[in-house]
Amino acid sequence: MVDGVHFRLREHGTTPHDVGHRALAGALSDLAAMGADAGEAYVSLALPVQFEGALELVGGMEELAAATGTTIAGGDVIEAQSLVVSVTVTGWADSEGELVGRDGASAGDLVGVTGELGGSAAGLLALSGSAPEDPLLVRRHRRPEPRLAAGRVLATAGASAMIDVSDGLATDARHVARRSGVGMELDLSLVPLAPGVQAAAAAAGRDALELAATGGEDFELLVTVPPERREGAERAASDAGPGLTWLGEVVPGSEVELRGAPADLRGFEH
Amino acid sequence: MVDGVHFRLREHGTTPHDVGHRALAGALSDLAAMGADAGEAYVSLALPVQFEGALELVGGMEELAAATGTTIAGGDVIEAQSLVVSVTVTGWADSEGELVGRDGASAGDLVGVTGELGGSAAGLLALSGSAPEDPLLVRRHRRPEPRLAAGRVLATAGASAMIDVSDGLATDARHVARRSGVGMELDLSLVPLAPGVQAAAAAAGRDALELAATGGEDFELLVTVPPERREGAERAASDAGPGLTWLGEVVPGSEVELRGAPADLRGFEH
Repeated sequence: MVDGVHFRLREHGTTPHDVGHRALAGALSDLAAMGADAGEAYVSLALPVQFEGALELVGGMEELAAATGTTIAGGDVIEAQSLVVSVTVTGWADSEGELVGRDGASAGDLVGVTGELGGSAAGLLALSGSAPEDPLLVRRHRRPEPRLAAGRVLATAGASAMIDVSDGLATDARHVARRSGVGMELDLSLVPLAPGVQAAAAAAGRDALELAATGGEDFELLVTVPPERREGAERAASDAGPGLTWLGEVVPGSEVELRGAPADLRGFEH
Repeated sequence: MVDGVHFRLREHGTTPHDVGHRALAGALSDLAAMGADAGEAYVSLALPVQFEGALELVGGMEELAAATGTTIAGGDVIEAQSLVVSVTVTGWADSEGELVGRDGASAGDLVGVTGELGGSAAGLLALSGSAPEDPLLVRRHRRPEPRLAAGRVLATAGASAMIDVSDGLATDARHVARRSGVGMELDLSLVPLAPGVQAAAAAAGRDALELAATGGEDFELLVTVPPERREGAERAASDAGPGLTWLGEVVPGSEVELRGAPADLRGFEH
């Protein structure tokens, strides 16, 4: 993550603590989407000489590391023109077979998503003044929680493919479809909206579903599940906390069709 | 490694291939100094939009990875204002006891260094025009080789502490002394100079021993060895290639005394 590209320190009150949390969360989210246990994190900080928030930034990482059972095991600090935070995480499983990739979806599988979407994008609208203040949405934007527990139990419950929703539901669904060699039919009107997203989108003159489907950075899990494993997956995701909402199914072909979407989103390509 | 801080692309003909090699070599050198086997490398590239050397840079890494048995297992590519290359490597040993730290040196241990020093600093003098052209020295500067094999055999042969010579012999000796709670008496006139260093230093009006002791970036290994393991360590380093030169011994206290050094180096602190 690079200051000025992926975030802007001090803009909208973004703190070094937020940056540290967000950088580790993004890395852990990729482990969550494989069903892996969080292992070690290695942190490289490239700091401008005048930067004074390094300890606060690492504090944000340490807090999330403690909450997720991650060990910050090493790293490096170097000088740079602008703040760059690079986090490598390793994850663990008892065997390779326990891990879930992006390439296992088959026609007939159900497609679901954990938790709620749109919160991060709506939080950014609130921060930028396009929507009213909303501390919960802002928190979803600044302090996303990687879905490690949900990823593990969904893997055990038979998920055939998973990805974390970082680029946006529409784009990430296409990543899974391409890697699995399948198509998908998704009904975006089923997308679970985080509380407050509808109001924030309306205030900003945006479509709430479009915001939820393209905003990204929610770090929920998009998962495909064979139909016979449906109930087990629902129970697992519910026990783990965020729950699971079905959006459609995997179909033969290579197209990801988005039903119930605004006209401009149906042709959306990232 | 940051362009403009740790290297300057295109200055003195530095290529993306050099940068890729150097970034991975620096990371692997830390594994070498622990006596670890190279395992996986995770590479994060932060690239300016106009940068066109990414594939060449990765090619430089892949070449060194193949030569050292390193697997480039993952990573990320992001946009940034300037080129930043971040490499995390994991290394492996059959048990923690096989690894060597910086903290195991005891009074009476011998202090040695693998290979030859000063080549990287002299290569930079040649590149900058302060010394005559010298392709071998320039290669030492641009394409340093991590001492993985020597590190492993020295660990097996009973090394009590190791560090790679990245900051410079004088500084790195102090790192080991501080971490081990000991002092050292080193005779810098014994430092093995790389071929051409004497001539390059003379041309640039520099003292060759000062160059070798403070230049750093040679990525040789500074090692402490109990006296009864002396012959085994010599044989191991010789079998592994670079050989070993004794520079002095570990003493009680906390001072690193540099004998045979120019007057201004005896008080040198990094």
